[in-house]
Amino acid sequence: MSNFTDYRGLVGQRADKHYKATLYQSERLLLGLNCLEPGQEQHVHSHDDQDKFYFVLEGAGEFTVGDETRSAGPGVTVWAAAGVPHGVVNRGSERLVILMGIA
Amino acid sequence: MSNFTDYRGLVGQRADKHYKATLYQSERLLLGLNCLEPGQEQHVHSHDDQDKFYFVLEGAGEFTVGDETRSAGPGVTVWAAAGVPHGVVNRGSERLVILMGIA
Repeated sequence: MSNFTDYRGLVGQRADKHYKATLYQSERLLLGLNCLEPGQEQHVHSHDDQDKFYFVLEGAGEFTVGDETRSAGPGVTVWAAAGVPHGVVNRGSERLVILMGIA
Repeated sequence: MSNFTDYRGLVGQRADKHYKATLYQSERLLLGLNCLEPGQEQHVHSHDDQDKFYFVLEGAGEFTVGDETRSAGPGVTVWAAAGVPHGVVNRGSERLVILMGIA
């Protein structure tokens, strides 16, 4: 496996739910892509003992973290500490592509 | 602290060495920015029990991971597993901005 990966080679879509691809994974960190077509959603959920971040690469998403819901576009990091409910929905007209990490 | 951060508000520079800013930090994950002006370098080093990734946001860098050295630009993830020496130098003419995570 190469230590260098361009995310654009991993972008994809599914009709029934959002698309996920793994970039790298260790016992400490999972780094991946989440791709949401317009209208697709990752329902609000939480991880008891894992922190998660989203970093928006393309498009825009409506992110919920705890009791806050905000739209975020390219260049924005969204942080959900362990135990904090989080999710995202693509209410836009273009694909939402997110770099995602869980530690 | 907000759970939403645009990295562009944290970009900076130092004359003497590369610039670092922290986006988020927990006991499991440090997420930050590394900004290297042309000619600046993060010398090759390693972390015995921490995995690290770089994700290039702006500019281009010459990254070393283990015995491999490659140039990487925006959209490329560079992965350095625990114990693997890694570093980066900016040999270009524009600022190199990297999203960096250590888990």
